[in-house]
Amino acid sequence: MATANKAIAIAGAGLVGSLLALYLSKRGYKVSVFERRADMRKNTLQAGRSINLALSTRGLKALEEVGLADAIKKVAIPMHGRMMHDLQGNLTFQPYGKEGQFINSISRSDLNIVLINKAEASGVSFHFNQRITHVDTDKTSITIMSPENHISTHTFDVVVGADGAFSAVRQTMQFSERFNFSQEYIEHGYKELHIPAGIAGAFHLEKKALHIWPRQSFMMIALPNPDGSFTCTLFFPFEGSPSFATLTSDRAIEDFFKTTFPDAAKLMPSLLDDFNRNPASSLVTVKCSPWVRNKTFLIGDAAHAIVPFYGQGMNAGFEDCRILNALLDKHHDHWDIALPEFQKQRKPDADAIAKLALDNFVEMRDLVADADFLLRKKIEAKLHTLYPKKWIPLYSMVTFHDHVRYSEAYTISRLQTKIMNEVMSRPGIQDQWESLDFKAIAESLQREL
Amino acid sequence: MATANKAIAIAGAGLVGSLLALYLSKRGYKVSVFERRADMRKNTLQAGRSINLALSTRGLKALEEVGLADAIKKVAIPMHGRMMHDLQGNLTFQPYGKEGQFINSISRSDLNIVLINKAEASGVSFHFNQRITHVDTDKTSITIMSPENHISTHTFDVVVGADGAFSAVRQTMQFSERFNFSQEYIEHGYKELHIPAGIAGAFHLEKKALHIWPRQSFMMIALPNPDGSFTCTLFFPFEGSPSFATLTSDRAIEDFFKTTFPDAAKLMPSLLDDFNRNPASSLVTVKCSPWVRNKTFLIGDAAHAIVPFYGQGMNAGFEDCRILNALLDKHHDHWDIALPEFQKQRKPDADAIAKLALDNFVEMRDLVADADFLLRKKIEAKLHTLYPKKWIPLYSMVTFHDHVRYSEAYTISRLQTKIMNEVMSRPGIQDQWESLDFKAIAESLQREL
Repeated sequence: MATANKAIAIAGAGLVGSLLALYLSKRGYKVSVFERRADMRKNTLQAGRSINLALSTRGLKALEEVGLADAIKKVAIPMHGRMMHDLQGNLTFQPYGKEGQFINSISRSDLNIVLINKAEASGVSFHFNQRITHVDTDKTSITIMSPENHISTHTFDVVVGADGAFSAVRQTMQFSERFNFSQEYIEHGYKELHIPAGIAGAFHLEKKALHIWPRQSFMMIALPNPDGSFTCTLFFPFEGSPSFATLTSDRAIEDFFKTTFPDAAKLMPSLLDDFNRNPASSLVTVKCSPWVRNKTFLIGDAAHAIVPFYGQGMNAGFEDCRILNALLDKHHDHWDIALPEFQKQRKPDADAIAKLALDNFVEMRDLVADADFLLRKKIEAKLHTLYPKKWIPLYSMVTFHDHVRYSEAYTISRLQTKIMNEVMSRPGIQDQWESLDFKAIAESLQREL
Repeated sequence: MATANKAIAIAGAGLVGSLLALYLSKRGYKVSVFERRADMRKNTLQAGRSINLALSTRGLKALEEVGLADAIKKVAIPMHGRMMHDLQGNLTFQPYGKEGQFINSISRSDLNIVLINKAEASGVSFHFNQRITHVDTDKTSITIMSPENHISTHTFDVVVGADGAFSAVRQTMQFSERFNFSQEYIEHGYKELHIPAGIAGAFHLEKKALHIWPRQSFMMIALPNPDGSFTCTLFFPFEGSPSFATLTSDRAIEDFFKTTFPDAAKLMPSLLDDFNRNPASSLVTVKCSPWVRNKTFLIGDAAHAIVPFYGQGMNAGFEDCRILNALLDKHHDHWDIALPEFQKQRKPDADAIAKLALDNFVEMRDLVADADFLLRKKIEAKLHTLYPKKWIPLYSMVTFHDHVRYSEAYTISRLQTKIMNEVMSRPGIQDQWESLDFKAIAESLQREL
């Protein structure tokens, strides 16, 4: 099917919307992107959205396909593992994978601007400050309100909702017949805080790590920025004690940080300003189906918003784009075949990473401070080193192996957990783990698959 | 707290809205009901909503409290059990409970009109053709559009969303911060059909039963009406084969009914007209939380819409009203205490009956045609007769025992299933069930509780 005279509208100029625009423009489509916000290239203020993200293999693979991986890697900071900070400021390091495997701390706005510029250079037209008020999935048309409140309706060959967790395109579909939908908030919100750079851009904490202050029912994390600063995120309950509801005075905030995160608190001179100025944002999991109605479809967070604890939200969205592009290859741009197949293939993976992301919050805020848990991970790492194809730890399957689907990773991890529960229950495991029969363990997984 | 000068707005003049209006008016509140549809007393056409309902103990208890149970019972038809129709037209009867226990087939519109009239007589003001466009849960105000498109905003002491599965009040809350929400459709839809009365109002089928044509992946049911007719409902997949999507010609419809429901087809002279005229409506489960925001709250289907297979949607909504009324008694009309307690108490029950209703579809369309299943129910009935307090079958707990909460019934039923699975696996159970040690079985349940 010829693509040259086909017009595609994408709602949302965020990371997924602009990457998809680039992919489709390269296929020969005439792509228009409509974004509710202002052009972030002119206004970098993005209240309530996290400032940096962890880019990993799945995301990078898509960026490679559109020729951007190298440029992005240059401005990213490799994080080779987790650095845990206990109450006394003692540090424990846990590598994410094997030697040479790492995830990348990247600025959301830097990445987004690169994508928009590249898409624009490729012929995509961007329209900012445009609010989508209606989508007609029978006519494949969208109705838009301009900043001057001018309303107009435009028809396209394909309409894409890449407009995030609170998608306006999805909202229209939600009131159509038999649309399954759920939005589930967790008890915790998040607030962004700041550790400035030292003298001459020095890093006050280990640069090549993702820092975690695990405190069982909540946690703070910090990701490095190229200028030597760290962006901290406090994940904290909205209600209860302690919670955002109890930290209502400057005194209470300072006391809490000095007691709970003493090493970090010393590095946060603007703590009170940041805490009082930045919002406590909520964390939601959104699921829906169908993603596709005729030639209108949802992608990225609009189809499957997840909590951030696996660092996979953007990576999953980028993988969506890569897989859709591959299906358009396979089906010669027959969208009527490619779109249902896209949903069929991708929905179980989106559901799986949604569950894994929720589970990983418990791991990050609580388990990483547990010696047994760290030993378990050490044994799994050794299994992986000895039998790299037979035993791939869950984190590695999700983060470093784009050929394992999220849904497969989920299934395999359940079996691994069962096996490791048995291994960890063996008497004296703490002292004798190095003499385990690793071969037998790796093979027991193969038998279960 | 004095109630006399407090004004309450209820969205929805359906069964739950009008019953709640009556309850609150009796408490001394000034109650206004706003309904999107026309006054059903002037226009009885209700496209897409089921014509009759099964009123059981929970619903009747609430009607008793407002002095309407006797009047309603007079126009209801008792149904003492299920009458199963097989492919050859052979009949099997399964009683719902003990001798003298039955559910009541009642016309939705008759019941609704009785409730509206009684509420109006009690001082409630009803406003029809009023569309709620916005609710402000901070100000406890609602914005309404009149049939002439006049928009006005009114402030109340309490605002209630009793406006059903597609509640406009809930829709406003859904876009507020941290509102958990899900709507899940099943693969089946339903279509209403008709068996007319015989000569002089004679019933063509057994009058005092709910008729089921179980066909594994789908079913038809029929409920008696006072005029001698039966209202049939076909629960049928939207897609696949057979499904609504395959029954597209008169010939296909007729063939299907003659083959699949031969005894019923003979009694359905207007089958083709009914089938072609009546919509195939969808079936949804809606869950949400919180139900309460300040002095605005949801009740009935607006808070917890369920599929109809346990006949408990209306009964659960009526029980909501009864329990809220009891909490207002207990807390002397302090809504700020009663409303959170209402949600806390009632949400687990709403979740439980939602699950039970989904499970019961499998029971009705498939299991009731299975000899083992019927034997299992027979053994449970005997257990109940011998030990009426120690072993109450699930259907009875839900339908005939308003002192057992839905969530308790759910938990107890899991234990009963476990015990009965073991009993049914005993060799020769089909022939020797009457010599079972019923006492030991009943006591084994008590030990697990």
